Amino acid sequence: MNQMADEPSAEDRLIARYFAPLATHPGAFGLIDDAAAIAPPPGCDLVLKTDGVIAGVHFFADDPPETVGRKALRMNLSDLAAKGAKPLGFIMSVALPANNDGKIDEVWLKAFVAGLGEDAKLFDCPLLGGDTDRTPGPISVSISAFGAVPHGAMVRRATAKAGDCIVVTGTIGDAALGVRLRYDTSLAQKWRLSEAMKAHLKARYVLPQPRNIIADAVLKHASAAMDISDGLVGDLAKLCRASGVAAEIDAGRIPLSEAARAAVAADPAAFEYALTGGDDYEILLTIAPDKLAAFGADAKKAGVAVTEIGRIAAGQGARFLRDGKPLAFTRPSYSHF
Amino acid sequence: MNQMADEPSAEDRLIARYFAPLATHPGAFGLIDDAAAIAPPPGCDLVLKTDGVIAGVHFFADDPPETVGRKALRMNLSDLAAKGAKPLGFIMSVALPANNDGKIDEVWLKAFVAGLGEDAKLFDCPLLGGDTDRTPGPISVSISAFGAVPHGAMVRRATAKAGDCIVVTGTIGDAALGVRLRYDTSLAQKWRLSEAMKAHLKARYVLPQPRNIIADAVLKHASAAMDISDGLVGDLAKLCRASGVAAEIDAGRIPLSEAARAAVAADPAAFEYALTGGDDYEILLTIAPDKLAAFGADAKKAGVAVTEIGRIAAGQGARFLRDGKPLAFTRPSYSHF
Repeated sequence: MNQMADEPSAEDRLIARYFAPLATHPGAFGLIDDAAAIAPPPGCDLVLKTDGVIAGVHFFADDPPETVGRKALRMNLSDLAAKGAKPLGFIMSVALPANNDGKIDEVWLKAFVAGLGEDAKLFDCPLLGGDTDRTPGPISVSISAFGAVPHGAMVRRATAKAGDCIVVTGTIGDAALGVRLRYDTSLAQKWRLSEAMKAHLKARYVLPQPRNIIADAVLKHASAAMDISDGLVGDLAKLCRASGVAAEIDAGRIPLSEAARAAVAADPAAFEYALTGGDDYEILLTIAPDKLAAFGADAKKAGVAVTEIGRIAAGQGARFLRDGKPLAFTRPSYSHF
Repeated sequence: MNQMADEPSAEDRLIARYFAPLATHPGAFGLIDDAAAIAPPPGCDLVLKTDGVIAGVHFFADDPPETVGRKALRMNLSDLAAKGAKPLGFIMSVALPANNDGKIDEVWLKAFVAGLGEDAKLFDCPLLGGDTDRTPGPISVSISAFGAVPHGAMVRRATAKAGDCIVVTGTIGDAALGVRLRYDTSLAQKWRLSEAMKAHLKARYVLPQPRNIIADAVLKHASAAMDISDGLVGDLAKLCRASGVAAEIDAGRIPLSEAARAAVAADPAAFEYALTGGDDYEILLTIAPDKLAAFGADAKKAGVAVTEIGRIAAGQGARFLRDGKPLAFTRPSYSHF
């Protein structure tokens, strides 16, 4: 019998079943072409970012599969938000280990894709293409996200100026405390956390809340910005180095959630975890004092809390003061190496 | 002593030392920002592709590190070439395992980056951004490459027409035979290969030769195209399915290198390996008969061999004929699943 070779391969069927439904953009060609094609908005720059997650490194292998793709996408969306960019879409590489039976866990995959699809809609950021591989290692999801800003307008790290106010969105340190709770369940008692507080901290690690809703306001008002992904202390230091400036932070003004406040009140060490742990996915921005009120008004309209925590100054180094005294940190920033 | 938190992290130093020198495009901001920004050429569509390699899956762990990044980049460049797109740049996620001493193998990394940097220059495709992680799994390199085509002009898979000529670039099957030689060294004798032939086949697996030099000619003349990465038989079947057409190939016209011809002459099974194995990274294109001569002339000028191997017809299914008799294949296409 002649093999006509016209049956789709198992890989093609996997793509058609699970990933093609997310590829709603016409330029994704339903994922049956080699590549996607999109027409960038006229007069815009394309903002490009890649970030990803590896099981056991950026998420726990037993995290709900619905959240794994969402976290990977949101990590990238958070960068686009901090750059003032509107999402256009993303491409994704997924490496999946086989089960003992040599097959991919399609139950996991189905839930993974369902979560990712929800977020693609929620953030108006469709899947444009991808690559699916089998791996002898852990599950790994790498996403490249694209956004648009008016030409030359991407909000950079390197443009903070002495005298600018330093502002953060949301609350700081929840995810870092949440991940500590995952590793050491006894901390919940030490930190005197209610069930709701525990759930809040853990949820902030599992599913970041990127601030894309205020990307326009960041674009309009910020002098410099970055997303906080490796801890406020280290990330502010990066912004200062890139801009060639110093920063002075009033640590008492750093916004903490009720759960984080409880932890810090019970255990002073929790404050350092909160400020130096990763996974906040809030925006750190600098802003000229005369624009602060307008930015605050835009953020309020969008329902995003923003807090001024300090000032940019001439010089170098980011100092954190509490009641006027400098704080020291043993490990200022999350680093993979 | 007050920790000023203004020292770069180990991760930042790794990026600055090894990756920043490749980020020559001004929009990469020397890799010190969260994201890159590029101004797409006016009137162009952006062509997006992602593909990658995992040690033990797409390359051998003992392959020269200089070739690993080059292969990952060239896999993507090959897709851009088949789509008629001019490369603009790429972003990359690298996951590296730690050595026994808990450190990254910087000797490997240095060589990896040196190879990648050569290719970034050679193909005028600069590094725009990246993400570096430590992994408990094997080395993995995921690349997203961007190219540009005039608006609406990306050469697709779905647009082949009955009557079109079917053309391939270069030679088919070398990499598939090269990888068989890696797994079973006794084949070299069975296939009566000279040392030069062995080296040729192995090199074609380790370092693909994407045909970006004729991307313009593909854009100008092809009715449909794709790159051949999962084997000619399976990839032609994909093109036929996407276009809703049939194909008839004269298997005797499929271009083989001297080494592949030797293997096939000694071992008929080698012919199936050559046609159904992966990693060719040649271009499969269809072209209206009246444009064939002009395409051939452009390809000749560029120094790329092109061979007409068959015709597109109405109907469905891709048939391979040898001396008028249909060939059967046991496993028509490489699939990861």
